[in-house]
Amino acid sequence: MRITVWNENRHEKKNQVVADIYPEGIHGTIAKTLAENGFDVKTATLDEPEHGLTEDVLNETDVLFWWGHMAHHEVSDEIVNRVHKRVLEGMGLVVLHSGHFSKIFQKLMGTTCNLKWREADDRERLWVVDPSHPIAEGIGEYIELEKEEMYGEHFDIPAPDQLVFVSWFEGGEVFRSGCTYQRGNGKIFYFRPGHETYPTYHNKEIQKVLVNAAKWVSPSNRPYPTYGNAKPLEEISKK
Amino acid sequence: MRITVWNENRHEKKNQVVADIYPEGIHGTIAKTLAENGFDVKTATLDEPEHGLTEDVLNETDVLFWWGHMAHHEVSDEIVNRVHKRVLEGMGLVVLHSGHFSKIFQKLMGTTCNLKWREADDRERLWVVDPSHPIAEGIGEYIELEKEEMYGEHFDIPAPDQLVFVSWFEGGEVFRSGCTYQRGNGKIFYFRPGHETYPTYHNKEIQKVLVNAAKWVSPSNRPYPTYGNAKPLEEISKK
Amino acid sequence: MRITVWNENRHEKKNQVVADIYPEGIHGTIAKTLAENGFDVKTATLDEPEHGLTEDVLNETDVLFWWGHMAHHEVSDEIVNRVHKRVLEGMGLVVLHSGHFSKIFQKLMGTTCNLKWREADDRERLWVVDPSHPIAEGIGEYIELEKEEMYGEHFDIPAPDQLVFVSWFEGGEVFRSGCTYQRGNGKIFYFRPGHETYPTYHNKEIQKVLVNAAKWVSPSNRPYPTYGNAKPLEEISKK
Amino acid sequence: MRITVWNENRHEKKNQVVADIYPEGIHGTIAKTLAENGFDVKTATLDEPEHGLTEDVLNETDVLFWWGHMAHHEVSDEIVNRVHKRVLEGMGLVVLHSGHFSKIFQKLMGTTCNLKWREADDRERLWVVDPSHPIAEGIGEYIELEKEEMYGEHFDIPAPDQLVFVSWFEGGEVFRSGCTYQRGNGKIFYFRPGHETYPTYHNKEIQKVLVNAAKWVSPSNRPYPTYGNAKPLEEISKK
Repeated sequence: MRITVWNENRHEKKNQVVADIYPEGIHGTIAKTLAENGFDVKTATLDEPEHGLTEDVLNETDVLFWWGHMAHHEVSDEIVNRVHKRVLEGMGLVVLHSGHFSKIFQKLMGTTCNLKWREADDRERLWVVDPSHPIAEGIGEYIELEKEEMYGEHFDIPAPDQLVFVSWFEGGEVFRSGCTYQRGNGKIFYFRPGHETYPTYHNKEIQKVLVNAAKWVSPSNRPYPTYGNAKPLEEISKK
Repeated sequence: MRITVWNENRHEKKNQVVADIYPEGIHGTIAKTLAENGFDVKTATLDEPEHGLTEDVLNETDVLFWWGHMAHHEVSDEIVNRVHKRVLEGMGLVVLHSGHFSKIFQKLMGTTCNLKWREADDRERLWVVDPSHPIAEGIGEYIELEKEEMYGEHFDIPAPDQLVFVSWFEGGEVFRSGCTYQRGNGKIFYFRPGHETYPTYHNKEIQKVLVNAAKWVSPSNRPYPTYGNAKPLEEISKK
Repeated sequence: MRITVWNENRHEKKNQVVADIYPEGIHGTIAKTLAENGFDVKTATLDEPEHGLTEDVLNETDVLFWWGHMAHHEVSDEIVNRVHKRVLEGMGLVVLHSGHFSKIFQKLMGTTCNLKWREADDRERLWVVDPSHPIAEGIGEYIELEKEEMYGEHFDIPAPDQLVFVSWFEGGEVFRSGCTYQRGNGKIFYFRPGHETYPTYHNKEIQKVLVNAAKWVSPSNRPYPTYGNAKPLEEISKK
Repeated sequence: MRITVWNENRHEKKNQVVADIYPEGIHGTIAKTLAENGFDVKTATLDEPEHGLTEDVLNETDVLFWWGHMAHHEVSDEIVNRVHKRVLEGMGLVVLHSGHFSKIFQKLMGTTCNLKWREADDRERLWVVDPSHPIAEGIGEYIELEKEEMYGEHFDIPAPDQLVFVSWFEGGEVFRSGCTYQRGNGKIFYFRPGHETYPTYHNKEIQKVLVNAAKWVSPSNRPYPTYGNAKPLEEISKK
């Protein structure tokens, strides 16, 4: 399976705290985790030509990870449409944390994807609410993160096709933190944690979820459906 | 409840067959049906200023019906965004037949909304698959339409939140014909039948579904959620 | 709409704390709330003949509320089967709090309906996660209960058809607290709060949810489907 | 992955037509297909002690296939409860055709699982309505079966968690033919075709679906959740 990890890669350049936690960028840490689990992994970032997401790159990508935050508006509509088309054709997509407000996630969801947030070192506890789900494999009853940004309901998304995790936050909120969607021929997983100033993607359980998610969203192998005018398969009576 | 029935209203002007079936326009027939059931009903059409969907009109609309086909591309993006915003704020939306390819439906669904189609006088039988659903109230086991345009799977939509009707077509296809979606504060119902050259909206059972749908998508009365930065509701520990 | 509020009515007799909070029984308080909202309400309790749920009573019940806890095993299988049949025929069912472990809820869900629990005066905050849902009408962003019993995930239920509320608990847990299900011709709502030693059913917002739930689960008016051997509706070719 | 294929194995003994199509029993044909795809496969039948489903057999079964029809009532409640427990613990279950009326499927669904049926050589066409689903991998737009028993809506099941196939029948009906459910820690797939007097399980595309289904329902590896009284994870304030 060929994975491309896309990252905005701006906080890493502007904020020493982030650079210290992710010296190779958030994309670098995630890519390393996935590669260690046997996937064929590349990375791409906002400031590359075509944001690193050329037609060739996307055509050779089975699963795309997406982390963005401060520069969603700098992602060109052309590239968003290209990624959107590929997802509907079957490419898996894992949207991380602040990617909730990315153009690609909003376009796929059809809603604002708005939410409550707070940077205040909340403790977060992600409870597994669907123990049968492959994305929860190997995870205990909950994942505890000592400090994270809070995201709170209402989260303005379509009701997920499957809800895997629900977060508890110290400051009093809850959040639907692990959500699957099937759109066209593609599968999507949204996973909440991962604020840039915390070492969340170094957490072993979070990494396990990323690996599980990559497998779950991987494309099913079948031809794209035929649309448009269709001849009858049975004789139609005269009326 | 205040309803606005929106219609492209082009086939009625160009095709005598359609004009004969719907002398007051498709919108006129649907509006009459709804008014007879006690709703406060207005109509709006493509060629009016702002397509008849001014801010004032939409602000005074609880439920919007949408029929379009040949001129989806003539609907301005500004009006589509306006309708989209109103749906997410709570306005109900009933999308009819070829409205599957309208900009507003595509934007809300996040998918192509593509499908198979054929104009060949197929018999259609819409089976109720959710007998508990209010939209199926008063409907028998199925609605039979002697002649209709065929729409066939795969229908490129998100899995509906609730699937109420599945169509059988004489030529060999099936279709998810009655689909509910909840998006933001709004409720949406897609209902398949209603090709312009057939008298489908004069059918009493189809009319019953339209009335039921209007009730089902009607707004729930509560304030719009608060989004953005949020103060904690509980004390957060020092870490 | 005719409602029957069923209660085990044992804690009220054995525990003075409960008797003081609910001098007319939990059923009495809920029935009064519903009656004040214009419904035709009766009550029934475990120790009446046939637990107060005779064929006649159920046939004249549109919506049944169910509160039970310490005596689930005393409810006869015959009555459970009778209620089950009525739900599948269309009677609405609202299952409250510890009713999660009732025979009727387990039979309808097909799972253990097990959960975590704790009686420790946790603060509970029920967040609305589906603002478009009629059951959330008139409710703010959350309902806060100063003290309640904790119920925590994993809650062993089928993924709800619609998830309306998610609870936050002071002790660190979350819970899917407002869940809808459609089974056969009937609609079901499970609502978490309501431990007998707290005045939860005197809370105005909780009462509002009960009223909304009664409306939402109310039967749709249509004939029961025909099952069994069926003649073809179309001619079948010789093969 | 260890699979047990359970079959009632009665039609094969009583009806020469069935014996000619399935000389090794329906279980034998399905087991052979699965074994050829690399699974570790055993079979079990009704007339064996404990129906072949001893504690040991079930404890060593990752996925159970179930075909039954004329003798559902002969399956002992004890064994049904044992299978039910194992599914909730994580064992996958694939229920085939007339297994819709088996005690185990009814118990897991909570509904009657009733439907319309007809033995009249209907042509069946199973349309893929979820092209992203792993169970549809390698399948074209539809599977066509020249002759099959008809099953028609309304099918009295909970709305499936995911709907993969919808059938068209020559005689005018439709049916939700491929349905997934997640219950407890287990995954379930119901697949409609497979009447005993037709060679359906010799069809290569049907076999492909069985193989895909076995993979999809396979257990996720994680400990069973802890239920019952739970100590707080956070300090609870005095009130």
